[in-house]
Amino acid sequence: MDSIELVEVGPRDGFQSVGPVIPTKDKIAILHALHAAGIRRVEATSFVSETAVPQMADAVEVLHAAQALDGCDPQVLVPNLRHAERALRAGARHVAFVLSVSEAHNRSNVKRSPAESAAEYGRIVDLLPDGTKLRLNLATAFDCPYDGTVDDEATLALLERLLPLAPHAEIALCDTTGRVVPSHVSRLFEKSMSAFPGVKWAFHAHDTYGLGAANTLTAYNAGVRVFDASVAGLGGCPFAPGATGNVATEDLLWMFEGMQVDTGVDAAAFVDVARQVAAIPGGQTGGRVREALSSKRCAA
Amino acid sequence: MDSIELVEVGPRDGFQSVGPVIPTKDKIAILHALHAAGIRRVEATSFVSETAVPQMADAVEVLHAAQALDGCDPQVLVPNLRHAERALRAGARHVAFVLSVSEAHNRSNVKRSPAESAAEYGRIVDLLPDGTKLRLNLATAFDCPYDGTVDDEATLALLERLLPLAPHAEIALCDTTGRVVPSHVSRLFEKSMSAFPGVKWAFHAHDTYGLGAANTLTAYNAGVRVFDASVAGLGGCPFAPGATGNVATEDLLWMFEGMQVDTGVDAAAFVDVARQVAAIPGGQTGGRVREALSSKRCAA
Repeated sequence: MDSIELVEVGPRDGFQSVGPVIPTKDKIAILHALHAAGIRRVEATSFVSETAVPQMADAVEVLHAAQALDGCDPQVLVPNLRHAERALRAGARHVAFVLSVSEAHNRSNVKRSPAESAAEYGRIVDLLPDGTKLRLNLATAFDCPYDGTVDDEATLALLERLLPLAPHAEIALCDTTGRVVPSHVSRLFEKSMSAFPGVKWAFHAHDTYGLGAANTLTAYNAGVRVFDASVAGLGGCPFAPGATGNVATEDLLWMFEGMQVDTGVDAAAFVDVARQVAAIPGGQTGGRVREALSSKRCAA
Repeated sequence: MDSIELVEVGPRDGFQSVGPVIPTKDKIAILHALHAAGIRRVEATSFVSETAVPQMADAVEVLHAAQALDGCDPQVLVPNLRHAERALRAGARHVAFVLSVSEAHNRSNVKRSPAESAAEYGRIVDLLPDGTKLRLNLATAFDCPYDGTVDDEATLALLERLLPLAPHAEIALCDTTGRVVPSHVSRLFEKSMSAFPGVKWAFHAHDTYGLGAANTLTAYNAGVRVFDASVAGLGGCPFAPGATGNVATEDLLWMFEGMQVDTGVDAAAFVDVARQVAAIPGGQTGGRVREALSSKRCAA
């Protein structure tokens, strides 16, 4: 039986998009429920400016709660060296860094050029104690909200620069806008895998244009086995307010379980958690499975 | 450049699910708008009992309006011989018949066994004047709302019985419940294509569990080139009230155009029609592209 690894990004990518600050105890309760449903890998929080992102002010407490869960591997997002230092001081053992292939998006996101961010990535890598796991998210690997389609060569060139800095890093190619189509997903992964063998790849899908599952399936068919997704599709799309963002974890669970691919997660238990998360005030949700199964229950 | 044929089923499959009767002039205006956007093949209406389905009481007028459109190929659904006779008297030149692979669904739908429906199909085939086009929809080809997963062998056995009756018929395998997963779509199409070479195949996807695009893509990768879809995702799911049913045509347009597959349709013009259709009172809509593009416009 084939298997995949799901990275549940709702507690970071999802919660960060929610306006009203979610009480820390509620966040921790959701982490417990996700863990009870079988989630082992979770983007638990981010270490960022508390002024800029008040929702993440409780990063230390949330990280420690996730680390206390049996077998849980929480990763935390860090935007720069200073916050990476904070995360490591708090005991983080799995760090995620993000930079954008497109200049316009990277400047908008972190006020730096991609080359400057690449240098910052190198400094963070140098800082990591042995055994610290590392995820590198390449935002706008396919498409940029400002510049449109990103050339394959731009993504490959950035990979060529970044990979030697940390050969053990897991690399996620991210569909930041949700506008990528399956043929582009397969083409870029095939080129990347061919150019850089031995790398552990991941895919981060958005469902904004209805292709979250189709693109994830395409990446799976290309050989990717690590997939980001957000419980209840929480997250929204910053470039299309009101529209869906992250692909819903429960939709991917439905697809992979149906295809006899092991996810390690109890889909029915997970859908119950997704319903709780969908009820969080101020969240923009997505996905179909939650609704389909709810309706079925109502009709029964 | 590869191309596909989209069969716009909104005016039949979609409208039929709408409670309040849509004025005939509004239906015809939508057919005109779909045609102006490039749609050439449309399931325009059905010839059924006016008592059972008051929404389809204007079948003759709608059919004639669709036939008057330049290059338009309207197909009409008929449930049995009597209504096929009505459709042909009205001048239908493209007829669609549906029967279910699963006994339970066929009995629920038309109060007959699949074998009895197969015999009725033979009688309809015998009735068709030369040159009449024929579409055969195999409902529950993958999954039945009452009996669950349908064995491949059951679908293949029914095909073996039906195909010789009308070797020229186009055969659609239909995901009636939306519960099919990509691995099942590819497996059944591969088996069917291998067992029955030379048949023109079609796929009818539902998006109830978020896999409408992924399953359509999978059928495309298996070699299918004719796809049903409904403008604005109109239709809903009778087995999951409140949930999405038919995959939205605009979502498939987005995917295939992005993949450089010719659809013959102007996607931007189509999305405008989809917005009109989504505003029809009493309709259950679906799809993502309409919302994503609307939000983008709002944000601009």
